[in-house]
Amino acid sequence: MPQPIRIALDAMGGDFGPEVTIAGAALALEHGLDADFLLYGDETAVRAQLAKFPQLGARSRVIHAAFAVRMDDKPSVALRQGRRVSSMWMAVEAVKKGEAQAAVSAGNTGALMAMAKVCLKTIARIDRPALACQWQTLRGRSIVLDVGATIGADARHLVDLAIMGAAMARITLGVETPTVGLLNVGEEEIKGAEEVKTASKLLRDNPPPGMDYRGFVEGNGIGKGLVDVVVVEGFTGNITLKTAEGTASQVFAYLKDALKRHFWARVGFALAYPFARAAIQELRAVADPRRNAGAVFLGVEGVVIKSHGGADAFGVARAIEIGYEMARDNLPARIREAAAIAHADEGGALAEESKSDAAE
Amino acid sequence: MPQPIRIALDAMGGDFGPEVTIAGAALALEHGLDADFLLYGDETAVRAQLAKFPQLGARSRVIHAAFAVRMDDKPSVALRQGRRVSSMWMAVEAVKKGEAQAAVSAGNTGALMAMAKVCLKTIARIDRPALACQWQTLRGRSIVLDVGATIGADARHLVDLAIMGAAMARITLGVETPTVGLLNVGEEEIKGAEEVKTASKLLRDNPPPGMDYRGFVEGNGIGKGLVDVVVVEGFTGNITLKTAEGTASQVFAYLKDALKRHFWARVGFALAYPFARAAIQELRAVADPRRNAGAVFLGVEGVVIKSHGGADAFGVARAIEIGYEMARDNLPARIREAAAIAHADEGGALAEESKSDAAE
Repeated sequence: MPQPIRIALDAMGGDFGPEVTIAGAALALEHGLDADFLLYGDETAVRAQLAKFPQLGARSRVIHAAFAVRMDDKPSVALRQGRRVSSMWMAVEAVKKGEAQAAVSAGNTGALMAMAKVCLKTIARIDRPALACQWQTLRGRSIVLDVGATIGADARHLVDLAIMGAAMARITLGVETPTVGLLNVGEEEIKGAEEVKTASKLLRDNPPPGMDYRGFVEGNGIGKGLVDVVVVEGFTGNITLKTAEGTASQVFAYLKDALKRHFWARVGFALAYPFARAAIQELRAVADPRRNAGAVFLGVEGVVIKSHGGADAFGVARAIEIGYEMARDNLPARIREAAAIAHADEGGALAEESKSDAAE
Repeated sequence: MPQPIRIALDAMGGDFGPEVTIAGAALALEHGLDADFLLYGDETAVRAQLAKFPQLGARSRVIHAAFAVRMDDKPSVALRQGRRVSSMWMAVEAVKKGEAQAAVSAGNTGALMAMAKVCLKTIARIDRPALACQWQTLRGRSIVLDVGATIGADARHLVDLAIMGAAMARITLGVETPTVGLLNVGEEEIKGAEEVKTASKLLRDNPPPGMDYRGFVEGNGIGKGLVDVVVVEGFTGNITLKTAEGTASQVFAYLKDALKRHFWARVGFALAYPFARAAIQELRAVADPRRNAGAVFLGVEGVVIKSHGGADAFGVARAIEIGYEMARDNLPARIREAAAIAHADEGGALAEESKSDAAE
């Protein structure tokens, strides 16, 4: 029988700390997750919360961390102050040491990214890591990456994003050959940024195994669910994600305002709500995908999941469940294999040459 | 008494041609616009529609154009085939010759952009033109640019976008000193793409006259209406705009689906609708800003407005009204003045040097 998976949880992460993170872990167990936990944080604070959840208590070990990274620390400061001693670092390091198979934190994104990179290192033949989110679409969910791990991407990095996104989609979406699209300003082959066109040519001419490359996708194609994996450079990806969240929030604000001002609107809404509920929940998922699902760091030698800083216990539980899935199916190994095949012809100097080719 | 403004209308533009464009011009007059029209297109087709609108007939001249640019023509093809002979070119050329003060087309965006550039030329000290849209926000409207005129922007071009957007905001929003923000992945000064950080420094250290620079804005800040003018490079801007439209359409799709499936949801909606109507219209404006308002070409020596290809008569009328406003307040002259002040210290070689500085 396989060992149950062990999750290293940064109990101090997020806007609410142990109160929410511990409740989230307990909720994941309630949902039926077969996992053990290493809980990193201020021992007194963690144990106080843990006392409420005997089932979780029986499956966890608490490890005291003297330091908690603050939500607004710069990554460099967090690394300098929090290396080895912070709950965030210790959770990531547990993955490195093999004591846990996934690290989950609702803490400072930049700091978590920096620690994951420094502690776990980047996967061979992958130059830079990425941050992937799940995007609620009309057809279900899609993976969108990079939503802000790095800024600027040459053609080779865009191909790596496609490889990493497809590996994640195979696990999360359960699709054997995920469809992949490059986000661009038009669907025609002649349009768009040079590096995006070059990446498209690379993906067409040498399709990496295990993906079905479908060409360009426009901004309004994401929500339609045109492809399983949407690839975009991190600056644009981050802005795109936040704009979609902002637009969905805007819709909520309009509706709330109408309800607040008009009695009959409230009556109508109360009648419609039980039936429109699924629609409203889907809408909420668009308004804040990160609250409903953890973002996944791709490209480092270990599974690291970022839960939303403002996540409630449900959000943390979802992030833990995603971490579990990624660990069970060994996401880093899948990316390592795919990258090795895709970049098989690259030696040392040759790899450098190919990189600058791709960037032209 | 000032002369009424004359609008050059590409009657063949858009998905529906003269049927919609002529009705749009007539609607603008009904709305009380004091404008004359030059109508370019197939004379028979245009006159057939014009017969329905005697008021418009009395204020227009029809000029036969032998050629109509197709919606899917490449810009280079449109220029080669349509130069001088197409309704689109002739409308733009009327502005150049001073026969009209604004050109309006619902045709092929790329072709219109190419013709505006070739025929009208770029304003002195502005390197590249931009496409600006009006974005429905929780606080009213904001100007977002560039939404796809050019791909890639160095710091100097971002500053030019700020200058052009502020000039447009003064006219459209009626704000004397519009607030301006740069779209970025975070609000902190240390974050983001290098050229965005450099542009921010330029705008802080040498604030161009007539704007209130507010620093960085994130994607979810657009819909909140945090600033009057949101500046972004064209690739990211285009994707951002289309993603917002896609997200709003997604919301409509969820709601329609809920209404289709559930009787009580329909009853509730019918009760709520009269009160939620304003909210729903605001939402529609988010779902398709270009359908409700023309996009404006900034940075060329003349007023050129792009109406949405799928616009109805209302959309075309709005685009014409925007063209009227821009012509009345002489947008190109305002941009010329602002650019001259902002780049006053640049001679020939000096200007080149400053450009490469900014790009670093």
